[in-house]
Amino acid sequence: MTVKEQAIHAKEAAVTLAAASTNAKNEALAAIATALDENRANILAANAKDVDAAKASGMGRAMLDRLTLTDARISGMIAGIHEVIALDDPIGEFLSMSRRPNGLQIGQKRVPLGVIAIIYESRPNVTVDAAVLCLKAGNAVVLRGGKEAFYSNSALMETMRAALGDTEIPADALHLVGDTSRESATALMGLTGLIDVLIPRGGAGLIRSVVEHAKVPVIETGVGICHVYVDETADLQMAAEIVENAKCSRPSVCNAIETLLVHRSVAADFLPLVKPLLDRSNVELRGDAETRQILGDCVVPATDADYGTEFLDYILAIKVVASLDEALAHIHQHGSGHSECIVTERYTHAQKFLDTVDAAAVYVNASTRFTDGGVFGLGAEIGISTQKMHARGPMGLKELTCTKFVIYGSGQVR
Amino acid sequence: MTVKEQAIHAKEAAVTLAAASTNAKNEALAAIATALDENRANILAANAKDVDAAKASGMGRAMLDRLTLTDARISGMIAGIHEVIALDDPIGEFLSMSRRPNGLQIGQKRVPLGVIAIIYESRPNVTVDAAVLCLKAGNAVVLRGGKEAFYSNSALMETMRAALGDTEIPADALHLVGDTSRESATALMGLTGLIDVLIPRGGAGLIRSVVEHAKVPVIETGVGICHVYVDETADLQMAAEIVENAKCSRPSVCNAIETLLVHRSVAADFLPLVKPLLDRSNVELRGDAETRQILGDCVVPATDADYGTEFLDYILAIKVVASLDEALAHIHQHGSGHSECIVTERYTHAQKFLDTVDAAAVYVNASTRFTDGGVFGLGAEIGISTQKMHARGPMGLKELTCTKFVIYGSGQVR
Repeated sequence: MTVKEQAIHAKEAAVTLAAASTNAKNEALAAIATALDENRANILAANAKDVDAAKASGMGRAMLDRLTLTDARISGMIAGIHEVIALDDPIGEFLSMSRRPNGLQIGQKRVPLGVIAIIYESRPNVTVDAAVLCLKAGNAVVLRGGKEAFYSNSALMETMRAALGDTEIPADALHLVGDTSRESATALMGLTGLIDVLIPRGGAGLIRSVVEHAKVPVIETGVGICHVYVDETADLQMAAEIVENAKCSRPSVCNAIETLLVHRSVAADFLPLVKPLLDRSNVELRGDAETRQILGDCVVPATDADYGTEFLDYILAIKVVASLDEALAHIHQHGSGHSECIVTERYTHAQKFLDTVDAAAVYVNASTRFTDGGVFGLGAEIGISTQKMHARGPMGLKELTCTKFVIYGSGQVR
Repeated sequence: MTVKEQAIHAKEAAVTLAAASTNAKNEALAAIATALDENRANILAANAKDVDAAKASGMGRAMLDRLTLTDARISGMIAGIHEVIALDDPIGEFLSMSRRPNGLQIGQKRVPLGVIAIIYESRPNVTVDAAVLCLKAGNAVVLRGGKEAFYSNSALMETMRAALGDTEIPADALHLVGDTSRESATALMGLTGLIDVLIPRGGAGLIRSVVEHAKVPVIETGVGICHVYVDETADLQMAAEIVENAKCSRPSVCNAIETLLVHRSVAADFLPLVKPLLDRSNVELRGDAETRQILGDCVVPATDADYGTEFLDYILAIKVVASLDEALAHIHQHGSGHSECIVTERYTHAQKFLDTVDAAAVYVNASTRFTDGGVFGLGAEIGISTQKMHARGPMGLKELTCTKFVIYGSGQVR
């Protein structure tokens, strides 16, 4: 089947899915969970083929780890499905309902988006996580994973589609694009009228390419060039702990920081205080002249490019600034609109930072690592939007819906 | 200045504007209203140049009417500004604020989108209406009007920018693209990172071209292929009045209907009942074989293309259907997702229509002509979205905003 044919089938299934009851959707999800449990051996065998091929091609350790499935990881997926079953169904909620002066009763009702397409890279668990979240919100999905995970994704999709066979939800609600070439991604991006929303999940290159080329509506996710700014009045011990956490607890994720900004008047005290904490994780420091003056030659000279790079690694760019305004200007210029933090004791500076910084999540005195659907109380998340349209920040079930106006009349004309 | 330079200036102004108080914004709007009032002569003289050129080029009457400004129309713009001043400022509202288990206080706050670009055609009043609505919601704008209205738009923009000179809002919050070539529109569509949202307002061709080519996020507006379906149990007199109103009260707008669907069992009664009402406006009827059998040769045979055309004129396509399901399938295939209506007395059919039809506004027993921001209680509107992302249906001030998460911590790390 071509990508377009898959999208047509998905769009047809979306009509049934939009009308499905919460019970019908939850029963379908439970059937998927059971089927994954029963098909562990098949899934692991398929994954082994992917992992063998990846090893042969010399894939790096971090990537290999993301690709590999284990019994524990399959159990994790199954547990995730049961969490989604437990979440409230967003569909059918009325955001408002009022009677207008002419007697019309007008309500705004939450409905599914329709068909959601997701283009992602190597992690096969996305295949299950994304399908399950979209389905709970009443959407059909067309998934296009990376070629490294082809056998794993195919086994997972086959298992899920077969599981839907005995439920009220049509198997055609779920599709995996068989062709993992660049052409299949391009085809997906051009299916105006069939794909309601396209979500790219992956590296900066993938996301840029999708934003550049897609004709269907896109939600941009995930690129995080995040900062911590240590203000002149900061509690320096607190600041050091926040910086260490935001950089070292999981550097490969988008809510980790890439740059530390320090107010000049505390730089000589703060930088020597935070350095030993960063040294514990062997963080490479890239600083401006003032940073190097304070910390010495162990700090690599930072280039302009360093302040605009998402390292996703144990690397931290550092800059000493003269004022809050200089920090704000730096973030305005280099930030990706993801998560930004100020550490300060000064009320006015805290409020100004919260008001001025243009990002999905702005923090006072807490690690940027908290930007996450679960932590924010949204339940599971499908990604973190760094654009402003439709959804901004962690996206849960509600962000996978839209609304329609429903009008009850009694013969009104205008 | 190039389009890109204008967008850069707009983005800078957007920072100031995002922090502006409601009073500052309302004072700026009042200054614009006063300036328009004081510059009527200039504006009308500029408009006369456009109108003369349009007449010389043989522009049709309807288009000429849209282009022409009068003292009364300028008064209308000024009254519109005072209505916008009276609307609640959406910015700063907290949609939620809660304390998480770890003590973080997390709120979701409404903020401006940033820079909104609008590409539109001949009506010069859009220049003022759009600028004023965007400004009230804290956004800078880059407007790109049609070449027919160049002198009018320039005079209006000059007046508005000059008016901002004495206020807290920078004049650079408002821009009109001087170059009205196709190239300037294309340039605008490619300004990723500078334009936060692009809204095309105009005909189907313009909108398709923007959706096709834009790299920046787009909100699709306005194309309306709307239907009334007269069910077998309909109150036929009510149905006839709704059809007449939906077709004839203002055929040039997007919420007017283009196609009438009639259940077979009432077609022989209903069509002769509605025809005299449509005859009063000389509506051209294009019907299928059954319609022609009932009404005779005065009905032009409908082609397939007729069922997919936004006539925006006194033309109505008609089709007799065997069931509600056939009507739903027809709407699913041909509708543009704008406004759809069923006239019925049967509860089950009303609910099924409301649940199943995938459109911005779905009606039972009322004219589709009500799809409008004012009627729906949103205040003024910037357009009617026919896409699902971000906004669907009439877009008021809230639809010109987005949200950000604001997090108050006390040293939390993850």
